Amino acid sequence: MTDPILLTPGPLTTTRRTKEAMLRDWGSWDTTFNALTASVCQDLVKLVHAEDTHVCIPLQGSGTFSVEAALGTLVPKNGKVLVPNNGAYCQRIVRILGYLGREVVVLDFAEDEAVDPERIHSALLADSAITHVAQVHCETGTGILNPLSEIATVVEAHGRRLIIDAMSSFAALPIDLRTMPVDALIAASGKCLEGVPGMGFVIARRTALEAVAGNCHSLAMDLHDQWIYMQKTGQWRFTPPTHVVAALRCALDQYLEEGGQPARLARYAENCATLVSAMRRLGFATFLDDTVQAPIIITFHAPADPAYDFAELYRRVREKGFILYPGKLTTVNTFRVGCIGAIDADAMRRAVAAIDAALREMGVMRFTA
Amino acid sequence: MTDPILLTPGPLTTTRRTKEAMLRDWGSWDTTFNALTASVCQDLVKLVHAEDTHVCIPLQGSGTFSVEAALGTLVPKNGKVLVPNNGAYCQRIVRILGYLGREVVVLDFAEDEAVDPERIHSALLADSAITHVAQVHCETGTGILNPLSEIATVVEAHGRRLIIDAMSSFAALPIDLRTMPVDALIAASGKCLEGVPGMGFVIARRTALEAVAGNCHSLAMDLHDQWIYMQKTGQWRFTPPTHVVAALRCALDQYLEEGGQPARLARYAENCATLVSAMRRLGFATFLDDTVQAPIIITFHAPADPAYDFAELYRRVREKGFILYPGKLTTVNTFRVGCIGAIDADAMRRAVAAIDAALREMGVMRFTA
Repeated sequence: MTDPILLTPGPLTTTRRTKEAMLRDWGSWDTTFNALTASVCQDLVKLVHAEDTHVCIPLQGSGTFSVEAALGTLVPKNGKVLVPNNGAYCQRIVRILGYLGREVVVLDFAEDEAVDPERIHSALLADSAITHVAQVHCETGTGILNPLSEIATVVEAHGRRLIIDAMSSFAALPIDLRTMPVDALIAASGKCLEGVPGMGFVIARRTALEAVAGNCHSLAMDLHDQWIYMQKTGQWRFTPPTHVVAALRCALDQYLEEGGQPARLARYAENCATLVSAMRRLGFATFLDDTVQAPIIITFHAPADPAYDFAELYRRVREKGFILYPGKLTTVNTFRVGCIGAIDADAMRRAVAAIDAALREMGVMRFTA
Repeated sequence: MTDPILLTPGPLTTTRRTKEAMLRDWGSWDTTFNALTASVCQDLVKLVHAEDTHVCIPLQGSGTFSVEAALGTLVPKNGKVLVPNNGAYCQRIVRILGYLGREVVVLDFAEDEAVDPERIHSALLADSAITHVAQVHCETGTGILNPLSEIATVVEAHGRRLIIDAMSSFAALPIDLRTMPVDALIAASGKCLEGVPGMGFVIARRTALEAVAGNCHSLAMDLHDQWIYMQKTGQWRFTPPTHVVAALRCALDQYLEEGGQPARLARYAENCATLVSAMRRLGFATFLDDTVQAPIIITFHAPADPAYDFAELYRRVREKGFILYPGKLTTVNTFRVGCIGAIDADAMRRAVAAIDAALREMGVMRFTA
C-alpha cells in the first residue's frame, strides 16, 4: 500500500530520493557534516541573490521557531513593530511579539484582501516610533499573496526595517534581495524546498545581525550567538537535526536540477491552475479572488449541502490516497488544498477525482447556499 | 563504503530499521500521525513509571531547546534556582537562566567529582529564597554520574522543586519517578533511545505544569501551551519533525524488544567495560574514577607524547571507520568516546584497535608525562 499524497502546506510529499538521504547517520562535529551545513546555507542565500549582503543562519525546530528567533534577535527591546494582518500567520507574529514584550501595532485587513502598501505608508507616517515592519509574504492561513516588493519599497522609504515570514513562498515565488531591502527573510526545510520538516533558517542582513549581540530573549533562539559560533567552528551550537539537514541538501540538489525557482513556480502554478479549474467544474468556489491567490495553497468554500461534513470528506478522500487540509478561518466554513510538494498536475487531477467521488458517496450535491 | 560508527553522545549510530522508518511522509494533522505522537509520549512516561503523576510534552529542536523550555515554563519569574555545577551542561543551564533573567546560585564542584547532596542540603538551608534545583544527571561534558536519588531526597526534604537534565541518561540508567520527587525530567530523541536527533521532550509533573500558564518567555518553548493544545487536538502546535517522530517510535519499538532499560544499560555497561579495559591496556587513563563513571561517554586523558594531536588521531581513526569526540574540558587535554548507540562490545574492540593502529602510525608511544 502506498502512502497518501499530502495536499498540505508542509509537511508535504517529498521524493523517495530526499527521504533516502536520511538513511545515513552523521556526526555533528564531523567535517563532512559541517560541509553539508555550509553548502545548504550557501545555496539558500544564493537563492534570493543575497550573497553580498546577507548570511543564512539555520535553526533547529519548526518554522515558527525561526520566526520567533528572528524577531527576538533583531527587534531591540525598545523596538516597535507594525504587523499588517490578513491571516493566521500574521496573528502568530503578533502573539510572538506579545511573549517578547515588544510593542506592536496591528494593521488589520480582511482575510481575502492583500495587504495594501498605501496603508503601511500611512501607518508609518503616523507613528515615527515604529522601528520594524513584520510581514507575511504568502499567508498560509488562506493562501493569499501579499505584494512584497511594494511593501519593501514603502518600508525603506520611511527608513524602517523589514522582517519577512516567507515560510510558504521561499524557493517558489521570486524574491530578490538585491532589489528588495529586507533585514530578515524566514523560511523552513519542509515547504517549497521540499525537504522534510525539522529546521528553519533566517537569511539576515549581516550589518543588522552584527548590531544585535545580546539582544535575544532565548539562548536556543539567539541567532546572533548561533551565527558567531557557526562562523568560528562550522558547527551548530546545539545538536543539529542531522538527517533533516541531509534531506534538505538532497532536496536542494533536486531543486537545482529541476531548474530552480522558475521551474518550481511553473510546476506549482500548473498544479494550482489544474486544481482550481477542476474544482470549479465540480461546483466549488475559491475563497480568494484569482488576482491575490498564490499557487501554494488554495482555500475552498465548503459545499452548502447539509450532507457535507469535512471530517467525513477528509476520511473518504484519504482512503482514496490524498490528505486534505482543514480551513483556518473562523467565520467561513472552508477547507484547504496544497499545491506544493513533489507532486504534479496529474496528482491534482486525481485528487479532484477523489474529492468528486467522495462527495458523490456522501450525497453532497449543492455547493452554494 | 559503509558509514563510520559514531562514538559520539548523540547524534549516534542508529539501526537501519530506525532510519528506514523515515522513508514515509506523514501529514501532521492526520490521525495516524497523532496516534504516533501519543504512543511515543505514553511510552516515554511509562519508561520512568510516571503514568499517574506526569505528562510527556514533546518539543521540536535539540535537547537544549527542551531544557530551556522546562526552565522557562516551570520556574516562575521571581524564582531562584540552585545549579550544582560539575560540567559543561550544568554551565549551559546557568547560561539559559541568565537569558531568562532568573536568579541563580551556582554550587561549584570539580569536574571529576560527583555532586554532593550534603552540599545541596547546606545551600538550601542557607537560602530559603531558592525555589528550584536544576541538576544534570549524567554530565556529558565528562561522563560523570550524579547521585540523582539522593539529590531528589534532599531537595524534597527542603520542600524545593527539582528539574533534571537527563539528556544522556534517560532510557539507559534507571529512573523511577514513583520514588523520586521530580517536577521535570528532560531528554531527547537522539541519545540513549537511539532515535535520530530533532526533538526533545519534558516529562513534567501535571500539577506543576497546571500552575504555570502564561509563565514562559517564549511562544515556541511554552510547554504549558504545547501541552494544552496537544490535549485538545492531539497535534503539535507547530509543524512537528514528522520523520524524527516516526524514527523515535521505531527506535522505541526496538528498545522494548531488546528488553527495555535493564537490557540497554547492560549493553552500554558492556560497551563501557570493553572500551575502558582495552584502552587501559593501550596505556590510556580515564579522566574519571570508575566509581563515578556513567557507562555513556568516557573521557580519556590525551597521551603526553609530543607526536599526539587530536585532529590527526580523529582523522586516522575516522578513516578506519570510527568517529571520536573531542574533549570538553578547558584545563586538561582529553578526548571522549561514546558507548551509546546501536553498537555492541565488538564495535568497541574494533574502535580501540583502530585507535591503537592510528597511534602507531603517528608514532605516539608515551601516555603519561
